[in-house]
Amino acid sequence: MNFKSAISVLLLGSTITMSAATKISRIEPADWFAGMKNPQLQLMVYGKDIRAAEVSTDYPGARIDSVVRLDSPNYLLVYMNLKDAQPGRMNLKFSAKGFKQAISYNLKKRAMKGEDRQGFSNADVLYMLMPDRFANSGTDRSNIKDMHPYSINRKEPSLRHGGDIGGIRQHLDYFNQLGVTALWFTPVLENNSPDNGKQSTYHGYATTDYYRVDPRFGTNEEYSQLIEEAHKKGLKVVMDMIFNHCGFEHPWVKDMPSKDWFNNPEWLLPENQANNKKAKTIDGAAMVNDKYVQTSYKLTPVLDPYASQADLSETVDGWFVPTMPDLNQRNTHLMTYLIQNSKWWIETAGIDGIRMDTYPYADRKAMAKWMEELNKEYPNFNTVGETWVTEPAYTAAWQKDSKLSNMNSNLKTVMDFAFFDRLNQAKHEETDTWWNGFNRIYNSLCYDYLYNDPSHVMAFIENHDTDRFLADGQDTLALKQALAMLLTINRIPQLYYGTEVLMNGTKQVTDGNVRRDFPGGFPGDSDNAFTAEGRTKEQQQMFLWLSRLLHWRQGNKLITEGKQTQFIPKDGVYVIARTLEDKAVLTILNGTSHRKKMNTAHYAEIIKDATEATNILTGRKICLTKDITLQPRATMILEL
Amino acid sequence: MNFKSAISVLLLGSTITMSAATKISRIEPADWFAGMKNPQLQLMVYGKDIRAAEVSTDYPGARIDSVVRLDSPNYLLVYMNLKDAQPGRMNLKFSAKGFKQAISYNLKKRAMKGEDRQGFSNADVLYMLMPDRFANSGTDRSNIKDMHPYSINRKEPSLRHGGDIGGIRQHLDYFNQLGVTALWFTPVLENNSPDNGKQSTYHGYATTDYYRVDPRFGTNEEYSQLIEEAHKKGLKVVMDMIFNHCGFEHPWVKDMPSKDWFNNPEWLLPENQANNKKAKTIDGAAMVNDKYVQTSYKLTPVLDPYASQADLSETVDGWFVPTMPDLNQRNTHLMTYLIQNSKWWIETAGIDGIRMDTYPYADRKAMAKWMEELNKEYPNFNTVGETWVTEPAYTAAWQKDSKLSNMNSNLKTVMDFAFFDRLNQAKHEETDTWWNGFNRIYNSLCYDYLYNDPSHVMAFIENHDTDRFLADGQDTLALKQALAMLLTINRIPQLYYGTEVLMNGTKQVTDGNVRRDFPGGFPGDSDNAFTAEGRTKEQQQMFLWLSRLLHWRQGNKLITEGKQTQFIPKDGVYVIARTLEDKAVLTILNGTSHRKKMNTAHYAEIIKDATEATNILTGRKICLTKDITLQPRATMILEL
Repeated sequence: MNFKSAISVLLLGSTITMSAATKISRIEPADWFAGMKNPQLQLMVYGKDIRAAEVSTDYPGARIDSVVRLDSPNYLLVYMNLKDAQPGRMNLKFSAKGFKQAISYNLKKRAMKGEDRQGFSNADVLYMLMPDRFANSGTDRSNIKDMHPYSINRKEPSLRHGGDIGGIRQHLDYFNQLGVTALWFTPVLENNSPDNGKQSTYHGYATTDYYRVDPRFGTNEEYSQLIEEAHKKGLKVVMDMIFNHCGFEHPWVKDMPSKDWFNNPEWLLPENQANNKKAKTIDGAAMVNDKYVQTSYKLTPVLDPYASQADLSETVDGWFVPTMPDLNQRNTHLMTYLIQNSKWWIETAGIDGIRMDTYPYADRKAMAKWMEELNKEYPNFNTVGETWVTEPAYTAAWQKDSKLSNMNSNLKTVMDFAFFDRLNQAKHEETDTWWNGFNRIYNSLCYDYLYNDPSHVMAFIENHDTDRFLADGQDTLALKQALAMLLTINRIPQLYYGTEVLMNGTKQVTDGNVRRDFPGGFPGDSDNAFTAEGRTKEQQQMFLWLSRLLHWRQGNKLITEGKQTQFIPKDGVYVIARTLEDKAVLTILNGTSHRKKMNTAHYAEIIKDATEATNILTGRKICLTKDITLQPRATMILEL
Repeated sequence: MNFKSAISVLLLGSTITMSAATKISRIEPADWFAGMKNPQLQLMVYGKDIRAAEVSTDYPGARIDSVVRLDSPNYLLVYMNLKDAQPGRMNLKFSAKGFKQAISYNLKKRAMKGEDRQGFSNADVLYMLMPDRFANSGTDRSNIKDMHPYSINRKEPSLRHGGDIGGIRQHLDYFNQLGVTALWFTPVLENNSPDNGKQSTYHGYATTDYYRVDPRFGTNEEYSQLIEEAHKKGLKVVMDMIFNHCGFEHPWVKDMPSKDWFNNPEWLLPENQANNKKAKTIDGAAMVNDKYVQTSYKLTPVLDPYASQADLSETVDGWFVPTMPDLNQRNTHLMTYLIQNSKWWIETAGIDGIRMDTYPYADRKAMAKWMEELNKEYPNFNTVGETWVTEPAYTAAWQKDSKLSNMNSNLKTVMDFAFFDRLNQAKHEETDTWWNGFNRIYNSLCYDYLYNDPSHVMAFIENHDTDRFLADGQDTLALKQALAMLLTINRIPQLYYGTEVLMNGTKQVTDGNVRRDFPGGFPGDSDNAFTAEGRTKEQQQMFLWLSRLLHWRQGNKLITEGKQTQFIPKDGVYVIARTLEDKAVLTILNGTSHRKKMNTAHYAEIIKDATEATNILTGRKICLTKDITLQPRATMILEL
C-alpha cells in the first residue's frame, strides 16, 4: 500500500473536506456500521504529524470516548461510542495548530443482524483454492499501477500466475456440479511486496493492507459481488486472515505506530542495522543481524504447564520469517484494529467464515478476546484456526470450551492435522499390525473424547502447505478410501482444488508444485478440467465418483447428526458406521492389497435385522446375510 | 486353596460350634471390624448345600439385612448392617432341615480411624520387589503341605526360587540405607496352582485365595508383622491386588457361585468341553475350545467415544490368559466381595497403599465404585492402577476427577508408561532432532495439562514386566540420567529391585530374566549386594550415587511442592527446574555423546542472581556466571 492508493480507497466510503493543510492520508476503517452490539469504533488515522490533532463530532448518538497518541507522530487513534448513532454521514473535525480537516464518515446500515450470519458447519464441504492458481477471468493482470514490481509468469512456480476473483466467479456452477458447499480462498488482501524474479507473495500471506483486496485479484467490490453470487448458488465463502504477522511492506513497518507494535523489532532499528557485519541469511532470503529472533516453530510452550518463559517467548514472539514482521497482539490498540477488521469484512463482504493462519503463534489471550468479540457479535458464525500440531491432545486444547485448557480460546473450529498425518502415513501401508495402516486412523479417532466438540473439527487430506495426497502418483484406490472417510466421519471436511481431477505433486521441489494451475482456468490452456469433455477418462471417473458422494452427503442428517461407531480394523478391514434413528451407513475400507471376506455378523449392532444395503458409490445392492467380498483396497459406503 | 486349609484359616479368627451336620467349610471374611464408615458386611458362606440355610443373630447392634442365594447350592451370601455393633464375638446361627451350626464371629476393634491411614505420595520413593526373587529367610520352602505340586529351582527362571516374607524382613535396614521410603511387593496372596516343571505362578498374579498369604511366602501374621516393622523404620508397604481375574484353581472356578461370576465362562462348561475336537493351544499352554474368548489387549474401546460393543466386550470380557478366569465385576456380589477384601487387608495388615493389576481390563464402573468406597473409608490412602498405555491422553483419563472422562474412576494414582516408553526409546539416542533423545521426554511431559493431578502419577524406568533399563549392558551414564529425571520431576517415583546394583536383563529369553534373584538374598549366594563389601566397585558406585540422591530427596519440599519448569532441549542439553520460594534445583542432562558448553544466561528466569550452585550428586560447587562444561551424557543436579 502507498498513501496515494490509501486515499483513493478512503474516498470510496467517505468525503474528505480539505481545509488549511491536509494531513490525513487515510482512516481505517474507511467506513463502519451503525447498530453493532459492541458500540465501540476505533479509527486509526494516518497523516504526517496527525498525532497532535484534536477531534470532535456533533453527530447524534456518537461520542468520542478517547484519543490515543502513539509513539509515532503520524498516527492518531480515535475511540468512539456509537451506541445510539443511526446510519448516515458522521462529521469528524480534526484540528491542530495551522491545520483543520473535516471528514464525512459513512456509518452504514447493516445488511442483517449478527445472529443471522450462519457460519459453515459439518453440513458443509469446503473447497479450498488459491486465487492466483485457480482461474483468470480474461483480464490481463500483469500491469497494475501503484504496485511494487512483480511479474506474471506461469512457468515460475513461485511467481504470480494471474488468477483472479473474476476467474473464480466464472466457475461457480462448477462447484455446484461437484457438490461442495463452501469455498475457502487463500488470502485475497493486498500483498504489495516486490518479487525478486523467482519468488513473490502470490500466496497472499504477507498482508500490506488489511482493508483492500489485492488489485492483482480484483477490487473490494468484485470480492463482495462474488460472495453475493456464490450465496445465490448455495455456496458459502470463507476468508483467510492473518493476525500473527503482516507483510514487510506494510506502512506500519517503516513507521512503527508504537515501539511495541511488533515483537522483536530490534533488528530493524537503525542502530542495529548498522551492525550488519554480523548479518546472516535466513531461509535463503533475507539478511538479518544478531538481534533477529525467529520463532522456534515449536508450539509446545504455549500449552506446556512447565514451559519456560524463554521458550514461550521464542515461540510466540519470534518471527515466522524475516519478511513477515511479527505483530504484537498484546498491544490492545493493535488487537482492537484487527478485531474490527474482521468484523468489517463480515459486514462489508458478507463472508460466512474465517480461516485464521498460524493461529497458535499469536498471543493466546488476545486471540481468545478476538473470538469472544466475534462470538458475541455473530453467535452463529464460524472460524477455523490453523492449528498445525499432529496430536489430538494438543489440537483439542485450542478449541472453544476445551476441558484441556484453563484459558478458553473461544475458537469454535480447529484443524485436524492428526487425521491428515495418520492418513498420509497409512495410505500405502498394509493394515496388518496394531500401529499400521488404518489402525493409525482408528487409534487417532479414539481420542475424540479430548475435543469439546468433534463435529467442529475440520479435517482434510491435503492443503496448500502439504504434499498432494497423490504425491507423484495416481493411486485412485487410496484416494477414494481417504475421501470416503473424510466425507462420512464426524468432521467438517475440507477439499483442496484439483483433487477431483487427480492433481498431484509434492513440495520437494517447491511449494508451487502443489499449487499448480487448475487446468482450463487460464487463457490458452490446452485441457479444460471444468467440463466433462475436457477431462481425461480417469479424471472424469474421479470427478463423478466424488460428485456422487458429495451430493449424497448434502443435507444428510446421518452425517451431520448420526452417532458414530468405529470397529477396530479386523483382518485389515476398517469399518466406521453412522446411525440415526432407523438409518445407518457403513463406510467399509479394505486396508490391504488382498481380497478379503468381511463377516457381517461382527457388525450386527449396526446392521441389526437388515438383509440388504445399497452401495451409494455405485448404486448396487449388497446382501448382508452373507460375507461381503472386498477387492484389494476396496471402498464401500453402504446405506441400510 | 482347598477346604481343609480354608477351615484352618477360619478357625484363626472365629470359633465354630459344631452341631447336627456341619456344612459350613469357610466364611469370608473370617473376621471383620466394628466401627467402619460403611456399616455393611457381606459374609460369603461356603458349604455343601448351604444355600438352603437361614441365618440369625442377636448380637447387639447387628442386623441381617438380606440373604442372597446364588446359582450354586454351595454358597450363601449374608448381608449385615453393623452400624451400632461394638467389637466382640458376634453369634451367627445357621440352620436348615437337619442342620444347625453356630458361628462365633470376631468383630475386631480397628487399629485406627480410616482418616489416619496415610497413603504413599510424591514424598515417597517406591521400591518394587518380587518376594520369590528378593531374599529367603533361611526357611526351606520346598515342601509346604496342602499346596499343589511345585518345585523350588533357582536354575529355572519360571519356577519358584524360594524367596519369602522373612527374607524381606531381614533387609529392612538395607532399604533405609538406600533411601527409599516405600516397598511394593508383587502379589503375596495364595497362588495354589500346580507348576508344570518349567512354569509356575511364582509371580503371584493368579490368586486362589483372596484372604491368605501364600504359605510359600509365609503367613498372614508374618505379613502383618513385616509391615509393622517396616513402619517402625519409616517404610510404607504397598500391596499388589488383582480384581480382573483370579487363578484357575480358585474354588469359584470348579463351583461357580453364579452363572455370571466370570465373563465368558462358556468354554469351561461340560457341554463345550466335549467339543475339544476344535481345541487349540493358546499361549503355548492351555487347550481351549472355540468358545474361549481372549481379550484383544486393546484398551482403546474403553475410552473411545465411538467404540463398538463388539470391541469393548472383547477387551474387558475376554480373558487375559486361559489360566486366569476373568471375573465379572458387574456382578455386584462379587464386587462387594472384592471391595471388602481390600478393606480387610488395610485393616488387618495395615498396608499403606494398593497397586491394582490390569486396571483398565476390569469393568470401569465397578472399579470406580471400589475406589469411591475406599476413598470414603480412607480419604488419605492411595491406590495406583496399572494403566499400561503409552499416551498421556489415555493414561490421564483414568485418573480421579479427570476432565477427559465422563465417568470418574476415583483412582488417585495412575502409572506413567509414557515416561517409561519415551525414556527407553531416548536413552541411547542423540538429542539432536525435535523428535529424538530427550526431546521425547520433553514432548511427553508437556502433556501434563491432561492430568488432573500430575503429582499423583507414578513414574518408573523399568518394572517386572519390562526389560531392565540396562538391558544386556551396563550403561551407567544413561542410568544416572534416567534416575536423575525420575527422582526430581513432579511424579511419584518407583524403583525396581536391583537397579541400585546394576541388575540388568531383557525379557527376550523369558520374563524370569528381568526377575533374577537379588545377589545375597539366598543361602549359598557367592555375592552379597546387601553390603558394601559384597558389591563390586561399579555396584558400590551406583549404590552410593543413588543413595545420595534418594536421601537428598527425602522430605525435600522443592521436590514435593516446587513449581516445575522445563526448557526445550538446547544444543542437546535438557534442563528441568524445580523452584519453591527462594530455592531452586536444576536437573541438567547432556543428551549427547559430545562435550557441551551450557550457556547459563538462557536459564536466567531460574538462576536469577545466584552466582554459585552445588551439584548434589558430588557436593562440588559450580560457578553460574560462566558457561558450564558438560561431559558427554553428563548428569548434574544443581541446587541453588
